[in-house]
Amino acid sequence: MNIDQYLTQHLDQYLGEVSELCAQPSVSARGGDDMRKCANLVAQVLARHGLEVQLIETKGNPVVVGTAKGKSGRTLLCYNHYDVQPPEPLELWATPPFQPSIRDGALYARGSRDDKGELVARLAALDAVRAANGGALPCNVTFVVEGEEEIGSPNMVEFVQANTDLLRCDGAIWEEGGIEPSGAPYCSLGCRGILAVELAVQTMNTDAHSGRAHFLPSAAWRMVRVLESLKDAHEHILIDGFYDNAKPASELDLHYLSLLPNTEALDKQIYGLKEYVMGRSSAQVKEAVFLPTCNIEGIDTGYRGSGFKTVIPAKAVVKIDFRLVPDQEPDEIFAKLRAHLNAKGFADVQLTNLGAMSPAKTAADDPLVQLTMRTGAEVYGVPAIIYPMVGGSSPIYAFRNPLGGIPVISPGIGYWDNRAHAPNEHFRIADFLAATRHLARVMNGFANLSSSE
Amino acid sequence: MNIDQYLTQHLDQYLGEVSELCAQPSVSARGGDDMRKCANLVAQVLARHGLEVQLIETKGNPVVVGTAKGKSGRTLLCYNHYDVQPPEPLELWATPPFQPSIRDGALYARGSRDDKGELVARLAALDAVRAANGGALPCNVTFVVEGEEEIGSPNMVEFVQANTDLLRCDGAIWEEGGIEPSGAPYCSLGCRGILAVELAVQTMNTDAHSGRAHFLPSAAWRMVRVLESLKDAHEHILIDGFYDNAKPASELDLHYLSLLPNTEALDKQIYGLKEYVMGRSSAQVKEAVFLPTCNIEGIDTGYRGSGFKTVIPAKAVVKIDFRLVPDQEPDEIFAKLRAHLNAKGFADVQLTNLGAMSPAKTAADDPLVQLTMRTGAEVYGVPAIIYPMVGGSSPIYAFRNPLGGIPVISPGIGYWDNRAHAPNEHFRIADFLAATRHLARVMNGFANLSSSE
Repeated sequence: MNIDQYLTQHLDQYLGEVSELCAQPSVSARGGDDMRKCANLVAQVLARHGLEVQLIETKGNPVVVGTAKGKSGRTLLCYNHYDVQPPEPLELWATPPFQPSIRDGALYARGSRDDKGELVARLAALDAVRAANGGALPCNVTFVVEGEEEIGSPNMVEFVQANTDLLRCDGAIWEEGGIEPSGAPYCSLGCRGILAVELAVQTMNTDAHSGRAHFLPSAAWRMVRVLESLKDAHEHILIDGFYDNAKPASELDLHYLSLLPNTEALDKQIYGLKEYVMGRSSAQVKEAVFLPTCNIEGIDTGYRGSGFKTVIPAKAVVKIDFRLVPDQEPDEIFAKLRAHLNAKGFADVQLTNLGAMSPAKTAADDPLVQLTMRTGAEVYGVPAIIYPMVGGSSPIYAFRNPLGGIPVISPGIGYWDNRAHAPNEHFRIADFLAATRHLARVMNGFANLSSSE
Repeated sequence: MNIDQYLTQHLDQYLGEVSELCAQPSVSARGGDDMRKCANLVAQVLARHGLEVQLIETKGNPVVVGTAKGKSGRTLLCYNHYDVQPPEPLELWATPPFQPSIRDGALYARGSRDDKGELVARLAALDAVRAANGGALPCNVTFVVEGEEEIGSPNMVEFVQANTDLLRCDGAIWEEGGIEPSGAPYCSLGCRGILAVELAVQTMNTDAHSGRAHFLPSAAWRMVRVLESLKDAHEHILIDGFYDNAKPASELDLHYLSLLPNTEALDKQIYGLKEYVMGRSSAQVKEAVFLPTCNIEGIDTGYRGSGFKTVIPAKAVVKIDFRLVPDQEPDEIFAKLRAHLNAKGFADVQLTNLGAMSPAKTAADDPLVQLTMRTGAEVYGVPAIIYPMVGGSSPIYAFRNPLGGIPVISPGIGYWDNRAHAPNEHFRIADFLAATRHLARVMNGFANLSSSE
């Protein structure tokens, strides 16, 4: 049976497995029993697909590793994660986030696209490659499914360093790929890093009556002063030395960026925008992925119920994430942020590192990238599009460094409106099927790929 | 029986009535059935003390009015409110806010000091005056107990205007008084006004992945820009024309302010402060009550759970209250705020008026003020202290204007650490008893008070 026949015939089975995984909540920001329940479920699913499975403990949530031997000595690693983002605000979901729902040709659930659907798509590809090769695999395959991606993969570096023999590979498939509005598959070659922090300030030991605002210091106002010290109204980050190690895009990166489709009309439709940040043009937005950002995730201070409450807040907490570009490092930026706060008179602001990942990037001329483009064109009928860098973050860096700078590609099930991290996350079933066909071809071709192609 | 004997003997009965009222939640910011339940309970309590009671409907919560005839034609009005502030954060209460608890010589409950205890103190005074006059009252008495003080008394102006005959009086007793650390009773002669508003901004139709922060506009950051446009780091409000009608303190006001006790050490102890706002001195703080303020009550944007969530908030809501001084008017300030937002490029910010009160002030040389000081000295053994203005707000203005600028004084049960509006609100029972003795003397002397004293 050929790859495409196999995948089409077994599609319902794979959608069932996605639903099975998504029905198990696994919000890593909250932790609890759910995490181990989900890890055990993933282990069961991997074993079901003929992988030899290990649950490897970390200081945080366990990592599930599944391996299978192939004919060649080359090894392809598939990275996924079983944890998901918090589902709030719940009232904006059309169906409950942990009750998977198939409707209008799509599968809705928290974790459907990010990242449980991606995991199952690769397992489907694995089955199809076996079926097309008389039950054998042409190359070794290693699945790594971690449980802390959405909180910054704090234990991934240590995990990889402690397991380099188990994880040794010649290339890896990451999440984050999918289909363009033009119908072309896209492939990203790297991602920004992230530093997520919490800033907390307390000006009094209790909230106070706002009739005393002429003499009692407000934590809310103090936090506004902290925030305005971090970034100006033109998106320029004001932390001393912040941009020192930020490498601008190369000429080749800029070339590929210029070929990317113009998504301005679509972005404005999806998000209901009047204009991009700072009134940036579409061309400026493409290049801005090589700029670091400073994003407020949320502010928690004072009263937020109905009506009003005349209090001066004693405490204010802000969560911020910085997206970092090569070669900015989270530890470096954290130290510079602390120094900034101290220098600006905010030594009293408590600063906590909530999670961090370094940036990472694969060269566009790598043979694995070329295989992905070639097989992508075969499945989708149009050439793949290269994103030299995407705006999000992933623990790619944690594999690349200890495993010798392996090439990393990312075909996947996503599309432009899948609402990852937001209410009503979903994937389209047609995209899921196309991605499994593409992934199977990459797995199938990987054995014979010379590193000098 | 004399006033003091009567009050001492019946103290437990009155504390029981305070507990009865405080056990009935009445958070006007939330509304619901509780409000009418509390109004009905207040009506029962007033009737129990021999007042002729009416429940008068408004567009909001009903007002309870109780009247009793006295020998003279003069009428003394007692203003109170039965609504309370929200009790959050609940975890900081030693005992539940709506389960009154007497311990260590104090009565703890939301609404104990503000304002149900004050109401019962005046009913106790009424009973004592009757007992001391053989069952008769020397002057007419009118109790007005409203249910929307904590949300800015939005219907009080209309209520008073519609009921001027019922409410006509020659003077009024307000809330907000109490005892100083020195043991002296204090009397405030006026209060600032308030304008409470909500500012809401929406930059997208959904929260988005923070990996897109280089092109998607953040409502959280936009709100930071709005806030920094409203007030500078030196507490100066930047709204054009904001200070135009702000009248500075008079020479006499400044004289009384200079006589006020220095509360710096106490304030710092109570609130755990290092210093006052802007490093103001104690003398500067006294005079700053004649300055308007711009206070952030709370900010609601993005994620505030545990860990972190990499989202760009699509919406941000801020509640702000401005405290206003004579002769600033809330409507004027609201219009200037709207104009400011439009002029600064924030025309998209939705502005909602949540509640407003005008400032109000009684002259220090009024005969009712002199009676209050004289009887205060008798009860407390030291002269009363005059606060020309207090920082909070009250609907005094809504009575003063339609009723011909009546004098308003405010002896009461409060003390410096009663935690009104905060967790663990309470009053001290000894203060309660002293206040009833003082209030009874004011009621008793009011009949024979000439307006030219």
